[in-house]
Amino acid sequence: MAKKTKNVESENLSDSVILTPQDQRTLAQILSMAQSIIETTAQKKEPSIAIPARSLSNVRFNATKKFLEIGSKKTSRDLFNLSQAKSFMQTLLVAKGSKQLIEMGKTSSIRGLFYMLRGDIKPTKEQTFNDQGECDPIIEDCEVLLDALREELHLFAEKKGDMVGDITVVDKGDEIDCSRMGSGGYAIPSIVEPSVIQFKKCGAKFILHVEKGTVWQRFNEDKFWKKHHCILTHGGGQPPRGVRRLLNRLHNELKLPVYCLLDNDPWGYYIYSVIKQGSINLAYESQRMAIPDACFIGLRSRDFERCQLSNSVKISLNDIDRKRAKQIAEYPWFAQKKEWQKEIEHMLKNGFKLEVEALISRSISYMTEEYVPQLLKEGSFLD
Amino acid sequence: MAKKTKNVESENLSDSVILTPQDQRTLAQILSMAQSIIETTAQKKEPSIAIPARSLSNVRFNATKKFLEIGSKKTSRDLFNLSQAKSFMQTLLVAKGSKQLIEMGKTSSIRGLFYMLRGDIKPTKEQTFNDQGECDPIIEDCEVLLDALREELHLFAEKKGDMVGDITVVDKGDEIDCSRMGSGGYAIPSIVEPSVIQFKKCGAKFILHVEKGTVWQRFNEDKFWKKHHCILTHGGGQPPRGVRRLLNRLHNELKLPVYCLLDNDPWGYYIYSVIKQGSINLAYESQRMAIPDACFIGLRSRDFERCQLSNSVKISLNDIDRKRAKQIAEYPWFAQKKEWQKEIEHMLKNGFKLEVEALISRSISYMTEEYVPQLLKEGSFLD
Repeated sequence: MAKKTKNVESENLSDSVILTPQDQRTLAQILSMAQSIIETTAQKKEPSIAIPARSLSNVRFNATKKFLEIGSKKTSRDLFNLSQAKSFMQTLLVAKGSKQLIEMGKTSSIRGLFYMLRGDIKPTKEQTFNDQGECDPIIEDCEVLLDALREELHLFAEKKGDMVGDITVVDKGDEIDCSRMGSGGYAIPSIVEPSVIQFKKCGAKFILHVEKGTVWQRFNEDKFWKKHHCILTHGGGQPPRGVRRLLNRLHNELKLPVYCLLDNDPWGYYIYSVIKQGSINLAYESQRMAIPDACFIGLRSRDFERCQLSNSVKISLNDIDRKRAKQIAEYPWFAQKKEWQKEIEHMLKNGFKLEVEALISRSISYMTEEYVPQLLKEGSFLD
Repeated sequence: MAKKTKNVESENLSDSVILTPQDQRTLAQILSMAQSIIETTAQKKEPSIAIPARSLSNVRFNATKKFLEIGSKKTSRDLFNLSQAKSFMQTLLVAKGSKQLIEMGKTSSIRGLFYMLRGDIKPTKEQTFNDQGECDPIIEDCEVLLDALREELHLFAEKKGDMVGDITVVDKGDEIDCSRMGSGGYAIPSIVEPSVIQFKKCGAKFILHVEKGTVWQRFNEDKFWKKHHCILTHGGGQPPRGVRRLLNRLHNELKLPVYCLLDNDPWGYYIYSVIKQGSINLAYESQRMAIPDACFIGLRSRDFERCQLSNSVKISLNDIDRKRAKQIAEYPWFAQKKEWQKEIEHMLKNGFKLEVEALISRSISYMTEEYVPQLLKEGSFLD
């Protein structure tokens, strides 16, 4: 007969910390997982955790929702399995670390969490985690397992990306008017959940998201967002989670269309794919990260001729580019779209790629005064 | 006898552009260079430009000013020299591009300038610039030649780095209260010259500059800058020029001490070296970038024992680390300092490096509540 098990409670909660409803939900998830392990143990059964599989075979493109999602396949992680015992322990450690952070009302970088949790397993010579590379996938496991975004576990990665435009946000109680941010802009934080960031006043009609900070500076300097009543963001290349989540929230909560100005190369296509459909690797987060209605405003393979660019802006495709372009063309969400198939074929036929900054060869403000305004007026986008 | 030459003038100036005194000075430098070439040509002499040499042999550590500076050696760049003709032309092109930008009242990324200036040299198959790598050193040449920082040529690189704290800055006319910037912060722009950024109100007593954004987030979340009345900045690793120049201006104009919290590894030492003494590669900019009075607050090689850190935070030194540490120990500005010699020797003897985030192994806010406050109180820094 099973002994009465002790209830796991959130007993370290500091008096000064006020938990948000989301924090309460995440804590409840962590405690429920711990409770279930204790109960299994009390019943003298083998402790085990069922983790939704994050492998490619368990990721599918949901054609109705129009984003990538994780399937129902689960893998079991067992304490009494030699090859799984360590990752079992690591999973509980990450959950414990997240619990501590939530209870303290603090957040940590994933590097910080690694240092919080790393230690000797005495009397062996083993460490709880050998390196960061061992910790990161366990964090991802915990996200799926606990149905909580990394940010809800109070964890963040290095941030990048800035925002300006006709919107006022409240960030941890501070009111930030993004139309009065000079040349620098508002640095988009890593964690942009509603408990941290609220939208207050918004006169913007859409969002222009550009790939790089240097292009963002051109648009900001020309006060594009003022003239066209929009919000201007960039994500320093592949946008970090904070930027993607903020775009998702602005799109869904304020009903703002998102237009992406990216390079005409496989990397630009892929950035668009991640913004729109979610990332293959982290498909479980699509629900709150992907923006299926996002549009690709350019650069397009047709632009070399259409914009009468000179030969000097061409950058030849290399083998990696060609291979990557073909892979991307085969993604289900691109494969179904004739326009995208034409776009990618056209680039391969061109034999060269084009950076957004190539438009500067026409004139310094061609992209802000002609290229984007014309496409917006015509409604000429790739879906 | 020389013909009367036409004066070179700033004739493309748009009516709507108001030149700052700095712009007028830079334009005058460019025009004077052009004028001198025209006059030489009119005298049927060979057109030539004398460029201060940027080689290591022309860089010296000025022990009085305590920063790196460029010597008086100059190299001649001649139009009628087969190996120099192209770079002669490129130098004039970059100066022309900068002149256009100033006259338009716009700025450009160095990538944008490359696209502005790249083109066919007909009827040859040559391009004005083969790639960005050919353009960047010419930009640096122009900086020395025209005695103007890149930013004064209206050029910028990708920006990174954020600021919060007890200061209000005016950025292109927008007043930004850095004590009301939430979790995101004010994104430090690439160009922070007085014509763009002015300091309005400052209650801060010092600047804490940390290496990485993730550490910055820890300090910001704990509102360190509020408790200790300071400004908190980071530069995303090796700080970009905008961050260095801003620190320099804050230090000199507002008389704020600068304390650097960097990793205990050769990379952290080198970041400190660049902030303090300037970079070897760009020694001509030290005057307006270096902060000879900056202090190194940590992490120190003694901290493993002093802070009672566990073995699990050690990261073993590799061969590259050891080699780099020895090189840095030999820099004249480190070589003269016993404390620094001891510091570097101690790290080599330890055989491991320490990241700032290793302090999290003590407790999540150990660095903000104990480590830095204690060292500040004791005044325990490396110079």
